[in-house]
Amino acid sequence: MKTAAWERRPFAECVPELVTAARGEVKASLVIQNVRLVNVVSGEILPGMSIAVKDARIVYVGQDVSHTIGDDTKIVDAGGKYAAPGLLDGHCHIESTQMTATEFARAVLPLGTTGGFFDAHEISNVLGLEGLRFMLEEARSTPLAAYMQVASCVPSTHPGLETTGAFIGPDEVAEALSWGDDMIGLGEVMNFPGVVYGDEKMIGEIQATLRAGKHADGHFTWKSDDWRLPVYAASGVNGDHECVTAQDVIERVRLGMYAKMRQGSAWHDVAATIKAHTEGGIDTRRMMLVTDDRSSESLMNEGHMNFVVRHAISQGVKPVTAFQMATINTAERFGVSRDIGAIVPGAFADIILLDGNLADVHVVMTIAAGRIVAENGRMTAEWERYDIPAEAFRTVKLGRKLQAEDFVIGAPIDEGKAEIRAIAVVENHVETIERRVRVDVVNGIVQLNPAEDLCKMAVFERHGKGGGHAAGVLAGIGFKKPAAIAMTVAHDSHNLTVIGNDDELMARAGNRVADMQGGVVMLTEDGIAEFPLTVGGIMSNEPFETVARQSEGISQALIQAGCPLNNAFMTLSLLALVVIPEIRLSDKGLVKITSEGIDIVPLFTGQ
Amino acid sequence: MKTAAWERRPFAECVPELVTAARGEVKASLVIQNVRLVNVVSGEILPGMSIAVKDARIVYVGQDVSHTIGDDTKIVDAGGKYAAPGLLDGHCHIESTQMTATEFARAVLPLGTTGGFFDAHEISNVLGLEGLRFMLEEARSTPLAAYMQVASCVPSTHPGLETTGAFIGPDEVAEALSWGDDMIGLGEVMNFPGVVYGDEKMIGEIQATLRAGKHADGHFTWKSDDWRLPVYAASGVNGDHECVTAQDVIERVRLGMYAKMRQGSAWHDVAATIKAHTEGGIDTRRMMLVTDDRSSESLMNEGHMNFVVRHAISQGVKPVTAFQMATINTAERFGVSRDIGAIVPGAFADIILLDGNLADVHVVMTIAAGRIVAENGRMTAEWERYDIPAEAFRTVKLGRKLQAEDFVIGAPIDEGKAEIRAIAVVENHVETIERRVRVDVVNGIVQLNPAEDLCKMAVFERHGKGGGHAAGVLAGIGFKKPAAIAMTVAHDSHNLTVIGNDDELMARAGNRVADMQGGVVMLTEDGIAEFPLTVGGIMSNEPFETVARQSEGISQALIQAGCPLNNAFMTLSLLALVVIPEIRLSDKGLVKITSEGIDIVPLFTGQ
Repeated sequence: MKTAAWERRPFAECVPELVTAARGEVKASLVIQNVRLVNVVSGEILPGMSIAVKDARIVYVGQDVSHTIGDDTKIVDAGGKYAAPGLLDGHCHIESTQMTATEFARAVLPLGTTGGFFDAHEISNVLGLEGLRFMLEEARSTPLAAYMQVASCVPSTHPGLETTGAFIGPDEVAEALSWGDDMIGLGEVMNFPGVVYGDEKMIGEIQATLRAGKHADGHFTWKSDDWRLPVYAASGVNGDHECVTAQDVIERVRLGMYAKMRQGSAWHDVAATIKAHTEGGIDTRRMMLVTDDRSSESLMNEGHMNFVVRHAISQGVKPVTAFQMATINTAERFGVSRDIGAIVPGAFADIILLDGNLADVHVVMTIAAGRIVAENGRMTAEWERYDIPAEAFRTVKLGRKLQAEDFVIGAPIDEGKAEIRAIAVVENHVETIERRVRVDVVNGIVQLNPAEDLCKMAVFERHGKGGGHAAGVLAGIGFKKPAAIAMTVAHDSHNLTVIGNDDELMARAGNRVADMQGGVVMLTEDGIAEFPLTVGGIMSNEPFETVARQSEGISQALIQAGCPLNNAFMTLSLLALVVIPEIRLSDKGLVKITSEGIDIVPLFTGQ
Repeated sequence: MKTAAWERRPFAECVPELVTAARGEVKASLVIQNVRLVNVVSGEILPGMSIAVKDARIVYVGQDVSHTIGDDTKIVDAGGKYAAPGLLDGHCHIESTQMTATEFARAVLPLGTTGGFFDAHEISNVLGLEGLRFMLEEARSTPLAAYMQVASCVPSTHPGLETTGAFIGPDEVAEALSWGDDMIGLGEVMNFPGVVYGDEKMIGEIQATLRAGKHADGHFTWKSDDWRLPVYAASGVNGDHECVTAQDVIERVRLGMYAKMRQGSAWHDVAATIKAHTEGGIDTRRMMLVTDDRSSESLMNEGHMNFVVRHAISQGVKPVTAFQMATINTAERFGVSRDIGAIVPGAFADIILLDGNLADVHVVMTIAAGRIVAENGRMTAEWERYDIPAEAFRTVKLGRKLQAEDFVIGAPIDEGKAEIRAIAVVENHVETIERRVRVDVVNGIVQLNPAEDLCKMAVFERHGKGGGHAAGVLAGIGFKKPAAIAMTVAHDSHNLTVIGNDDELMARAGNRVADMQGGVVMLTEDGIAEFPLTVGGIMSNEPFETVARQSEGISQALIQAGCPLNNAFMTLSLLALVVIPEIRLSDKGLVKITSEGIDIVPLFTGQ
């Protein structure tokens, strides 16, 4: 499953050498002595333990591993530091960091993340299986234990609601799942109404996944007491991260699902969802901590899974239980607990050392696939960088220059007041709310009153599929002066999305993004901030540090323009995601999720 | 995986109909209303729940399933009774009940067992893969969710220590694991020294198992603080039922293994081992309850997994936790928790209703594969009986009549005292102890003093492989008068074993067993008790009730002869099992396990 640099050979092939090395007949390559072992299997902290590693795997764990030490064994004296399994992210879109897998690995390994379950549905919406394939191959070239899911929802629902760059159906799912054991299952099945009501494509994809002996992840955003959650569970989808309350977690676990509690950059669900255990007392074995989407800045400023585990502990979870939620629970969910998620003989040597109080999750050393890759917050390992294929760099196919007129919203009346459906953003939450707003109409054109904190949003198809577009109105963005932000990061179809309060600036920002072959441009009368994302229009080809700096530049520009939202860019980049309640804008128009399903609704309420 | 009568189709194939039935568009075949749901996933007891079933699977679980009820739906009003997942036996040799799979199913289904993980290594020692194949096919013909393991140890160690009827190696393991998803993994790897020291056959079998994506079970009887337990764990073997102390459980779980706590007829390990949780406080997710070997009488008089769960609760385990140890933990261990082990949408409808106090585990209804199969302790379902192939009935190939002279033990001296290694039995435990005993020698022949509670044991090869035999001395059998018991049930090679204190009676008992083509014969001067076991010489072809009666007849005869041991027959039938400490007798001689390994030792200590 790995290129030679970070080879992770299957357990079966390693059995003879594992046993030989465990006996000490062939000596260990690495020994870590005197750790406080965070044993996530037994749920204990065990002092005075040592760990012997041969090549990529752990061969021995015990109080005395001296028989495994030879002349060439590298010895780390941990001096009583905690040793825990490397942290696993049980649901993550790497693309949301705007980094490629290589730079993602460089960013998260020093933070203690050694593996993850990645749903590359962003790049798949742009480039289909070709995009998934290069993400997989790049991930394989890193030290991470990286497992990929094949995107279930390309498009997220159906072509009538949005235009994507590719299509993935049951045949494509079956093909992708044949690429290797690290193709772990089906990515979040966001078209949950489709599943519940028997959509052939969705049912076929789930069947292809189960036939391959793999796992289907979910995304159910109707309320957890909706009578259709058990229907969704009956389909075989048995993991879901769309939990925002404790009850959401409890109901899913009761139905046999793994409930993934999310601490992304722009949604902070753990404080509420963890109460399923801290107050509701349910068994934690099917509770997992995940990030879903974290920005490069969040990784830099807060951290990755180390931050999420620390946060869970701060909510009153016993430390070893919180570690379980980011290690063994995650590995068990995907059927790979023999390989990752615990420090036990035979497993991959993905180990972190932690200093100080365990609850602080202060990672000072990361070992991945048997080698020390990071110390004291810095990568110490290097490897040959994966070459991203040329096709990934030419994906913005807008076909024309945008004009200010593209952002004019025509009304069904000539003059007076019209009521529209505005999309109201909710800070730190993924959901939006439909707000009915009365706007002035002059000469048949909608006028937005700056005092009401309204601005425009427009989405332009950019995959070379006809170039349609639609416009709507946002509430709560907070722009205090003329401003526009344009971006080809617009989950999940990643069409060119422009948000602003000045038609001219909006057109200019959009054109600049197209010229860059993807990225983010924030434009005010004072200046411009640019964040080029040339890989599929959604990822940077630059190192992690550059990505974080450029991302920060966009954030600063948004703040200077008056936008008060925490992680504003990520919040904005999700406003086109038509499978998240309550109301979104795609290139096809306003899309609303109700308990009836997902459908286009008119901008004007009278229509 | 099943014949039509009790078809259990793969989940993937059922997805469309599961979703349709969960929505209520196609109506349920069975609805159970108003249960207290033992939710082993969330660890809760939930009152007021209902369950809808379509064909073999659960389609809906909730407070209201009325939308699934149609004119043809059978409705069970549970009136507030508990509903729990059908109990699973995580390690069981069906042959130890002396019943075939059909009769085993008839015996245990009314007791609430709906599935199990069966290691048919007894029949495999007699008939090899052909024996395993018919056991699998017969198990498939029953309502049970029966998963079979391929025996790893045929012979249990190597042909120098005992003679078996067949041989199973890596190629045979790979072949058997290709027979279907219900071929779940590798049976207990009893040759643990072989694994630890890199025996090619054992390592090859484990590799074949892991390559098939399946699981290898263990059997490690050196002490749990032996430095080689982590070596064993490194081999990929990750389940083990040879736990007799709490520490045995804790050490295994810490190493990532599933620890199986055993309550067989003749070994009662749960009271001690469960303390790993009740006193040691370790996480219970990898603790399982199993039976290993239970006699037909134990099934009749005490029960099966219902008895074991009740016993665990009586030791202070929270009821829902004890149920987890016999349901979801077991299913997760084998990677089949999507299908069995929990009452959740999509899973097989293997459900038990329990009356009264949950801690009493009083099963009043068993539903298997969606149909009511037992009520109030009695089977209500019938099905076509599997035809056991003719080859299974002609397996006792002794080749000659036994004589009294066959039981004479010659000494290395002519007259005087000689010291021998006697096998001392330990009641209710599987292990034996070597006791040094001084015996009289007259005319070069060992004389046993009845007052010392010594008797003889002889093992005759009976697979047509040369007919060798060996003799030894037992201590603690308790015969108070001339008596002999002969049997072709003698784990695991099932050679003809004769135990007694009268050479003439011993020869007659042995010959009678050979004439019956297998079974057990207890002979005293007062009479004879016979228990014919014509299937492979180890299983009866009679109904459960007859088996239990005949087994009881042997037990009574043993008691009347003075043998005080609880479940004496089972204890005796294990005296030839050379992989259990400390000392055993095979057709090759006395075999002893030390921390050095397993090897032949002389009967006389001076030699």
